[in-house]
Amino acid sequence: MARAMAGESVVTRVARVLSAFDQDNTVLTVAEIARRAHLAVPTAHRIVAQLVAEGLLERSDGHCVQIGNRLWALGACGTRALRLREAAMPYLEDAHAVTRQHIWLYARDGLDVLVIERLRARNAVSNLRLKVGKKVAAHATAGGLVLFAHAAPDLQDALLEQPLRHYTPRAPTTPEQVRACWRAALLDGYATCDGWVEPHVTSIAIPVRGPGGEVVAALGLLLPSSGGEPTAHLPVLLAAGRGITRALTPQRAASFAAR
Amino acid sequence: MARAMAGESVVTRVARVLSAFDQDNTVLTVAEIARRAHLAVPTAHRIVAQLVAEGLLERSDGHCVQIGNRLWALGACGTRALRLREAAMPYLEDAHAVTRQHIWLYARDGLDVLVIERLRARNAVSNLRLKVGKKVAAHATAGGLVLFAHAAPDLQDALLEQPLRHYTPRAPTTPEQVRACWRAALLDGYATCDGWVEPHVTSIAIPVRGPGGEVVAALGLLLPSSGGEPTAHLPVLLAAGRGITRALTPQRAASFAAR
Repeated sequence: MARAMAGESVVTRVARVLSAFDQDNTVLTVAEIARRAHLAVPTAHRIVAQLVAEGLLERSDGHCVQIGNRLWALGACGTRALRLREAAMPYLEDAHAVTRQHIWLYARDGLDVLVIERLRARNAVSNLRLKVGKKVAAHATAGGLVLFAHAAPDLQDALLEQPLRHYTPRAPTTPEQVRACWRAALLDGYATCDGWVEPHVTSIAIPVRGPGGEVVAALGLLLPSSGGEPTAHLPVLLAAGRGITRALTPQRAASFAAR
Repeated sequence: MARAMAGESVVTRVARVLSAFDQDNTVLTVAEIARRAHLAVPTAHRIVAQLVAEGLLERSDGHCVQIGNRLWALGACGTRALRLREAAMPYLEDAHAVTRQHIWLYARDGLDVLVIERLRARNAVSNLRLKVGKKVAAHATAGGLVLFAHAAPDLQDALLEQPLRHYTPRAPTTPEQVRACWRAALLDGYATCDGWVEPHVTSIAIPVRGPGGEVVAALGLLLPSSGGEPTAHLPVLLAAGRGITRALTPQRAASFAAR
């Protein structure tokens, strides 16, 4: 993140302070917020105090601060993420019941890939890191590959200009490798990653389309690497993906009416 | 809401703009935001543009704006509401499976009562209004009565200084009536409302306590008014409430270790 500019607006600083929080940093001191937001400590103090007064942040135990319930309630106000989640939930539940594996739905937000929902399976591969609202690696997850394979070229370029974090030796780390993965995802209609983020964990993802045919999400499974061919799960994923598209489509009964 | 002051801070104006959105107003024009936030239209335009640039708001179709996915993701970062929801979910699911009625968990946030979670039941009383993150009436719902019966006197006084909206002729509308309901809720250990918000719908609520004994939530059911004595459901609610308290308590196995 760039160093704060003297002339940047208060709104930008508010956004910086809020963005100091993520799924792995839910309770922070003002000093930690200042460091993570690249703000001077007195500036961070002042903005935090104002956000606390407005209920957007809350004091936690001692000198710590957390996201306020008011902000949580705002996030529950019909965002794209929430509408997608609501449309997708019945299909996620059905595919989850059939596969008995961890299933997840990701969406792209700018250059970030966000976990929109995940249903965990007992006795499946361990995966405690997938939390709703969390960012996952855009270049090193099956879902991220699917989403960016279908993204506009300027977004693809912008992603590849960022540092491509190295997870395991099997994951792609150069722009050329990532572009090759995107081409494969477009050609095959799905992407797989075997041991890219964690050893012994394979993921498979398909694109989910909106009413206009645009890719709005990626739907996938986390599987044990020793559990056989991941593409065996493609039919249930594809069927669930079509269900989500139908649920996102206004007047979903129109195809009957037209007959 | 008071008229915007000339000297108020940008952070306050940001909070005003964000608070124009709620569960019934998820997509707004800038003019609507200005009206609901009591801001001049050019001021609202400027702040909305900055919030869109930061991803906290998003442009929707045409000239409309909605809460951004980034804000949704922030709201998913370990707020009090979310921790409460996660601790409560298994007990909500069990009580839901046993009662086969709409079950909900509310928490107080300042003078507001927020829906933290709700599980719907098929073939139960119709209730499409209970959405997660939505505010419900503090003085005219069983959950609101339970939460404010256990709130500090200054919060009780502040609530009763606000206008008490009239829902149905059976709901309390004077401070004296509300105080009598609070006394009954403390004495009985639960509250019921029969037809206060909607005709033919009864609700029953119990307090849920945190590790220190303080009331952190209200747990309740929506029942058909013709469905018999609501207190028949008290044992399952009380048992679920105790489970939530245990789940919220650090070192929940301590009582075994001490023996």
